[in-house]
Amino acid sequence: MSASSVDLRAVRARRLSALRARLASDGVDGLLLSHGADLPWLTGYRAMPLERLTMLVVLPEADPVLVVPELEAPRVAAEEAQVTLAPWSEGADPVELVVDLLRRGPWPPRRLAVSDRAWAVDLLRLQARLPEVQWLAASTVTGPLRAVKDEAEVEALAGAAAAADAVARAIQAGEVPLRGRSEAVVAEEVGRRLREAGHQAVNFAIVASGPNGASPHHEPGGRVLETGDTVVLDFGGTWARPGDVGYCSDITRTVVLGRASAEVREAYAVLEAAQAAARAAVRPGVTAGAVDRAARGVIEDAGYGRWFIHRTGHGIGVEEHEEPYITAGSEVVLEPGHVFSVEPGIYLPGRFGMRLEDIVAVRPEGRADLNQAPRGLVELDG
Amino acid sequence: MSASSVDLRAVRARRLSALRARLASDGVDGLLLSHGADLPWLTGYRAMPLERLTMLVVLPEADPVLVVPELEAPRVAAEEAQVTLAPWSEGADPVELVVDLLRRGPWPPRRLAVSDRAWAVDLLRLQARLPEVQWLAASTVTGPLRAVKDEAEVEALAGAAAAADAVARAIQAGEVPLRGRSEAVVAEEVGRRLREAGHQAVNFAIVASGPNGASPHHEPGGRVLETGDTVVLDFGGTWARPGDVGYCSDITRTVVLGRASAEVREAYAVLEAAQAAARAAVRPGVTAGAVDRAARGVIEDAGYGRWFIHRTGHGIGVEEHEEPYITAGSEVVLEPGHVFSVEPGIYLPGRFGMRLEDIVAVRPEGRADLNQAPRGLVELDG
Repeated sequence: MSASSVDLRAVRARRLSALRARLASDGVDGLLLSHGADLPWLTGYRAMPLERLTMLVVLPEADPVLVVPELEAPRVAAEEAQVTLAPWSEGADPVELVVDLLRRGPWPPRRLAVSDRAWAVDLLRLQARLPEVQWLAASTVTGPLRAVKDEAEVEALAGAAAAADAVARAIQAGEVPLRGRSEAVVAEEVGRRLREAGHQAVNFAIVASGPNGASPHHEPGGRVLETGDTVVLDFGGTWARPGDVGYCSDITRTVVLGRASAEVREAYAVLEAAQAAARAAVRPGVTAGAVDRAARGVIEDAGYGRWFIHRTGHGIGVEEHEEPYITAGSEVVLEPGHVFSVEPGIYLPGRFGMRLEDIVAVRPEGRADLNQAPRGLVELDG
Repeated sequence: MSASSVDLRAVRARRLSALRARLASDGVDGLLLSHGADLPWLTGYRAMPLERLTMLVVLPEADPVLVVPELEAPRVAAEEAQVTLAPWSEGADPVELVVDLLRRGPWPPRRLAVSDRAWAVDLLRLQARLPEVQWLAASTVTGPLRAVKDEAEVEALAGAAAAADAVARAIQAGEVPLRGRSEAVVAEEVGRRLREAGHQAVNFAIVASGPNGASPHHEPGGRVLETGDTVVLDFGGTWARPGDVGYCSDITRTVVLGRASAEVREAYAVLEAAQAAARAAVRPGVTAGAVDRAARGVIEDAGYGRWFIHRTGHGIGVEEHEEPYITAGSEVVLEPGHVFSVEPGIYLPGRFGMRLEDIVAVRPEGRADLNQAPRGLVELDG
């Protein structure tokens, strides 16, 4: 399927049908979507991070209606989104409007689902107005649907991954000056290159050098990179087809300035083997826990187990982190269309850290590696 | 007070004392801070927008403890933040940890407050674990405290405003090419200039040209600016002292490419008079509603009332929008330390729009205009 042939209206109509079927089968009387990725996944529209309430009311039988602040309404491509708009003007009570719209469905509602990232203040208002309702997180309904990507989504994620690969390759080729620059300055260049490579937005750019590498989510700061540093570069952005909601990239590569010490080389060999083992474990029918185990087992066997302090990966799509999570013991069974990161790491506090991350897609025949940048340890001169 | 003399630890200790006094006087047994600005205002630390829970447990008597994912813990400057860390490792249940920490306070708790922007999914988990608790939005406790800025905060907001002014003046001087460029390209340059002027982050840059100006929150797109266009430029970023949490800027200026039509000139004169009237109304003891009325009255009297479709302003601080809100009928009484935008607008659907926005601070003797860029209609040649 070529990018231009994606019929977004048809895609969104399919998603809405699937959601409604799940509402019916799960016994959920309505789904209320506000902040977070469910709303753009379903409609292409993202709620502004404002104190004014935006909320899509999805019912098993009636058409979806978007409650939206009047001054945001012109930004909604209502026809493309296939929703009816219910703009509210300043001074009106949007919660009352949501309740009125719920009356078109099962009344009184017994169970309602609300966006995981809806703001607590809005949920509290809804709860005060509908005290008898049992509330669920929307992800119980939307998570499994969003986790299984269709072909167009896999293609978009591959587009995002290729754009991130271009930046990783530039770093590995020594085209991004590192030595003598601060982490923050390097992070800014990484961000700029993510945009130049086709991302519409930069989501994050971690540059963690020397001992800072031992903090997996280190915030790039004033530390100047110097010879001997192990540098963890973890970055990603959002990449979108025209008119479509964006999909995320996320890649990590580790480089050494100068020659790697024997200790770093040994640890990296373990890391690379662990990541390869985890990727090799990916296929339909395998559990997420088994993929985690494949990586963790290699690292534990080499004696680094206590320095691998996080899960092996996370699903990726419209959100940077979404289902399926690749965690120890997870019994989620992988199926074609699941797309997630495989990113083991080894972190020696106060000394150095390293991580190797790629996005993989589960395919009927096994897996596809969406990232292709080289995975070996790169030593950079100059 | 000079920027370097601000003792952030002392400031944060004062804020914690004030919060605890309010918890006691409001009969709130605990305050749980997660996403949003309350946490960085109190500690300098901002929760990552992750599915892993970060939550500060503030009790009337016991010391504050930050529940934080183990891999984020190294990012917290715990000593500066004056909190104890309770890191949780993957597989642990952070909600259980929060509940255990609450046991150090009034038990069982009857009323708890949670960050307005905490995620619904986390509130639902807490509610499932503590079904008897009455939940409140944290802003009922923190909002009035955060709304009244101390001298160092007013100084930071003035610093942010001056940085935004520099960009506004450059636009008004014709230093930012407009004609023949798309809104999106202009927005990118505005963002770059916000950083160059000293902002650490760009929060938004609206460029709304011609008929797009009639949508107050228009997303800059492919429309190319041309002679005759009225262009609304509304932008802001975050500006921080070293080590301090950032404060926001927010300014809007409207320019015309070429000569303004008589209609645009007439409407702009009304807008400018309305904004001046509202600023002139700002002083201690006046209600927020009276400031809104001052702007709205001028616009209504001139016959444009139905085209001014939003409130007159919003408080600004660590968040772009916070208390006090300058809305019709608001009975909130202004007091020294309140800082907010004054931003009336006139929007003619399908034709053009205009808005004029400045940040003002309420002072004991009246007000201070934190933005100083010229407010008249600017016609740009070339």
